Amino acid sequence: MKVVNTIEEVRKEISSQSCSLGLVPTMGYLHEGHLNLVRRARNENEKVVVSIFVNPTQFGTGEDLGSYPSDIESDLKLLENEGTDLVFNPSSDVMYPDGFDTWTEVGGLSRRLEGEFRPGHFRGVATVVLKLINIAQPDRAYFGQKDAQQLMVIKKLVLDLNLNVEIVAVPIAREVDGLARSSRNIYLTSDERGIATTLFKSLNLAKDLYENGVRDAEKIKQEISRLIESQGVSAIDYVSIADTETLEELDFIDRTALVSLAVTIGKARLIDNVILHDELAGLT
Amino acid sequence: MKVVNTIEEVRKEISSQSCSLGLVPTMGYLHEGHLNLVRRARNENEKVVVSIFVNPTQFGTGEDLGSYPSDIESDLKLLENEGTDLVFNPSSDVMYPDGFDTWTEVGGLSRRLEGEFRPGHFRGVATVVLKLINIAQPDRAYFGQKDAQQLMVIKKLVLDLNLNVEIVAVPIAREVDGLARSSRNIYLTSDERGIATTLFKSLNLAKDLYENGVRDAEKIKQEISRLIESQGVSAIDYVSIADTETLEELDFIDRTALVSLAVTIGKARLIDNVILHDELAGLT
Repeated sequence: MKVVNTIEEVRKEISSQSCSLGLVPTMGYLHEGHLNLVRRARNENEKVVVSIFVNPTQFGTGEDLGSYPSDIESDLKLLENEGTDLVFNPSSDVMYPDGFDTWTEVGGLSRRLEGEFRPGHFRGVATVVLKLINIAQPDRAYFGQKDAQQLMVIKKLVLDLNLNVEIVAVPIAREVDGLARSSRNIYLTSDERGIATTLFKSLNLAKDLYENGVRDAEKIKQEISRLIESQGVSAIDYVSIADTETLEELDFIDRTALVSLAVTIGKARLIDNVILHDELAGLT
Repeated sequence: MKVVNTIEEVRKEISSQSCSLGLVPTMGYLHEGHLNLVRRARNENEKVVVSIFVNPTQFGTGEDLGSYPSDIESDLKLLENEGTDLVFNPSSDVMYPDGFDTWTEVGGLSRRLEGEFRPGHFRGVATVVLKLINIAQPDRAYFGQKDAQQLMVIKKLVLDLNLNVEIVAVPIAREVDGLARSSRNIYLTSDERGIATTLFKSLNLAKDLYENGVRDAEKIKQEISRLIESQGVSAIDYVSIADTETLEELDFIDRTALVSLAVTIGKARLIDNVILHDELAGLT
């Protein structure tokens, strides 16, 4: 496994190869969810590149850019174990040199849900993902379903800008008690960690209601909010049941729907989601 | 020479080749300036792709999108003569399908000069050029120096987004009397065609003043405006003497400078420019 910090080194490493390449963009502090992406990439490509870059442009003012957890030594050990070929770990100056001023934005999708509560977030995501794809020129790039909206934004970016890369969605990795794996779970105290399972429980509740024939989105959202609030969690950014293509809120669930939510518990802003569809209303 | 209309056909044509590729993006109605781009691409690459696409997203309200001249039959004959390998002539629906909503914008540079008078113009240019580069995946892409600011915006786009393509600038092609070749010259009546030479004359005046030691940018701009106005042309959008990196206006010409201007004569909005520098203050 080679670890490089500059774009030129990545270019040099990939240009000498004419084999299939999988890219796994991460912000480091890797957990099982990231490793699932790497394993999937490992299975589907001859070479695997993992980027570790805490992208400042996707954090808003007052967000956790300054405290975002990091453990590069552990990350590299984990990636080595998974058979990663190349790790790209650039500094901010490498990705955003002085005078950088070119931005890519996916309209519509980017303004809903996370975009409403984190203005500019998806502009930063779209721009850095576009850059990473241009740098590594992968055949496939891997993203987790936990960030469902991010995945949709990136798929739209690839479609609209005619990028020659396949975006692969990988199911959410969960702890034994159902909490979605996230680097931000480290912010939770022991008590908060217990309360945080309410996200998974509330999504399961949504699934149960749906499987029992409930199609009134407002009713399901109310039940979710009630369950979360019963745990003493009051900081709910949103509970959404939306069209999986447009992210427009649904009144009546007459098609495949994304149930997604964002809540803050202690210092951790957590998101989770499940897709409801007729044949298999399963947690992804 | 093959002519195709879809992205899939371009992909198919280029994927079967592992040779160097030059891309010449055009809006058609080709003149000597375009053909110079094709010739340069022909010299420097094994394969040459020319795109012909009147990009709607770079035209503003009230601009000449509806009347932009077109002669695809003549264009194809000219391109065939120059040894073009592939012509990509997509419809608007191919480039901007229903629901398209992803935009790329180069800040700073895009808001000056043309950007001030044509809001949104460079967002459309950056987006379509990024798409064309992603579609054709060329080693080199060719642009004319006549659109000096466009060239700067595209170079910045490539730098900031880490596109793996070399941008090649090709000198302005001029008529015998100095008028810069442009598809929009067709809008000029015979009388206006005579008056239009004032652009080239005024740039030569700037060059002469500079070579004679004048470094006061305001003085040179005044002389240019006076000359243009003496021809009865009053619709001057701008006369600019600016830094060639930032496009910031210069008071005192203490570095390489871009003299550029935009005037409307009859129905034609014409632009032209010259670069002033110490060793060789030549018209490009």
